[in-house]
Amino acid sequence: MANDQTMTLVIIRHGESEWNKKNLFTGWADVDLSEAGRAEAAEGGRVLAAEGYDFDLCYTSYLKRAIHTLNIVLDEMDRAWLPVIKTWRLNERHYGALQGLNKAETAAKYGEDQVLIWRRSFDTRPPALEDGDERDAHNYPAYRDVDPADVPMHECLKDNIARTWPYFESEILPQMKAGKRILIAAHGNSLRSLVKQFDKLSDEEIVKLNIPTAVPLVYTFDADMNVLEKKYLGDPEAIAAKINKVANQGKAK
Amino acid sequence: MANDQTMTLVIIRHGESEWNKKNLFTGWADVDLSEAGRAEAAEGGRVLAAEGYDFDLCYTSYLKRAIHTLNIVLDEMDRAWLPVIKTWRLNERHYGALQGLNKAETAAKYGEDQVLIWRRSFDTRPPALEDGDERDAHNYPAYRDVDPADVPMHECLKDNIARTWPYFESEILPQMKAGKRILIAAHGNSLRSLVKQFDKLSDEEIVKLNIPTAVPLVYTFDADMNVLEKKYLGDPEAIAAKINKVANQGKAK
Repeated sequence: MANDQTMTLVIIRHGESEWNKKNLFTGWADVDLSEAGRAEAAEGGRVLAAEGYDFDLCYTSYLKRAIHTLNIVLDEMDRAWLPVIKTWRLNERHYGALQGLNKAETAAKYGEDQVLIWRRSFDTRPPALEDGDERDAHNYPAYRDVDPADVPMHECLKDNIARTWPYFESEILPQMKAGKRILIAAHGNSLRSLVKQFDKLSDEEIVKLNIPTAVPLVYTFDADMNVLEKKYLGDPEAIAAKINKVANQGKAK
Repeated sequence: MANDQTMTLVIIRHGESEWNKKNLFTGWADVDLSEAGRAEAAEGGRVLAAEGYDFDLCYTSYLKRAIHTLNIVLDEMDRAWLPVIKTWRLNERHYGALQGLNKAETAAKYGEDQVLIWRRSFDTRPPALEDGDERDAHNYPAYRDVDPADVPMHECLKDNIARTWPYFESEILPQMKAGKRILIAAHGNSLRSLVKQFDKLSDEEIVKLNIPTAVPLVYTFDADMNVLEKKYLGDPEAIAAKINKVANQGKAK
């Protein structure tokens, strides 16, 4: 018997953070949204509401720029009461020893090519944090209940997929199959990890894909998780400008 | 073998809402915090952080004035990542046909004594909403997954206890017994429902008890839920003034 159930999932990357604005590598550093980031998130929520979207369950990371983006979106939709599950597995890729460094300065120092590899290589990790570094997330309260072996000192996108995708398959997908409408608010790389799997992209293709900030991305799947439709909500020109802005962050000047 | 485990629970009433400010009966009307309410919530979060409190799990209602109070408290504590469970069972008492009416005007019309009965009687319900009233929560998206028989048209405090206490016993208490430190952000009457049970107050005693807005109230229990200590955190004079303010809301002038 054919199963013609379709499933809808909306993902949204957090709005501009204080460190995006300063062009710093962020990763697991828990920086907040900028004023512009809050405004972007609100616009994302308004377009979801205007287009009639609704949800049953939301997921986000342990990082406040994603949590606050979700809260702002839900407020704009008058859906503050929706259940929200927070998981470290949707955190941004851990940027290791690059966290807190300026992207352009790092490019000037190591070369744009090296920075592009660190930013966009599928399986090359940035330099690891050393033991005793104050940026080591093992010391952060947020990860006190996470198996220390799971808390990274640096990650490539492949590492990110290794923690996001099993979570998606074991926790989120069963909810989608049960008919729940899901909203995920997360990060550039944790969302690229999911998109690579959704769109069946190669390791090379995902390197070139940029997800704009705070623009709802709507996926419709068939029951076997084949993509039936994929679309951004909002003004196409503004979205294109945002995608281009992300792509240019690693340039030296 | 003696079980000498103690359990700590912090409860906090939401900050001033837009309708508190206007002295309107609120109940399940989903009004937001006022600017003063947000400031109160932030102060509540700061005192919790300053006194070294931390939590493992948080509970709140489906109403945005409680959800936002909790979010603000968690932001001040740098604990936005803590798990939060939202439940309609912690909603404010449903004020029936009084919702949206001015407390002083209602007192002038029906008498202060009648309003005091509606506000503070243990088992006298305010007038019920009629079928077709736009204030009927059966029509609100937030309660679409709640058994319609559980969605009230008016409630007395006894009704409120009938939905909050079983939830506390079945969902929250087992977490406390498992060693989790719990924070509950809720409402004047849903918290009075809990306090009546915690403090083993009579139906008459609970009528006189007022809980100030946005002041953390810390309970320490023994393993059998006997209260070992109960204290408000913050400036005692400011807390006393807040308690007095709540008590005076039902006066005609």
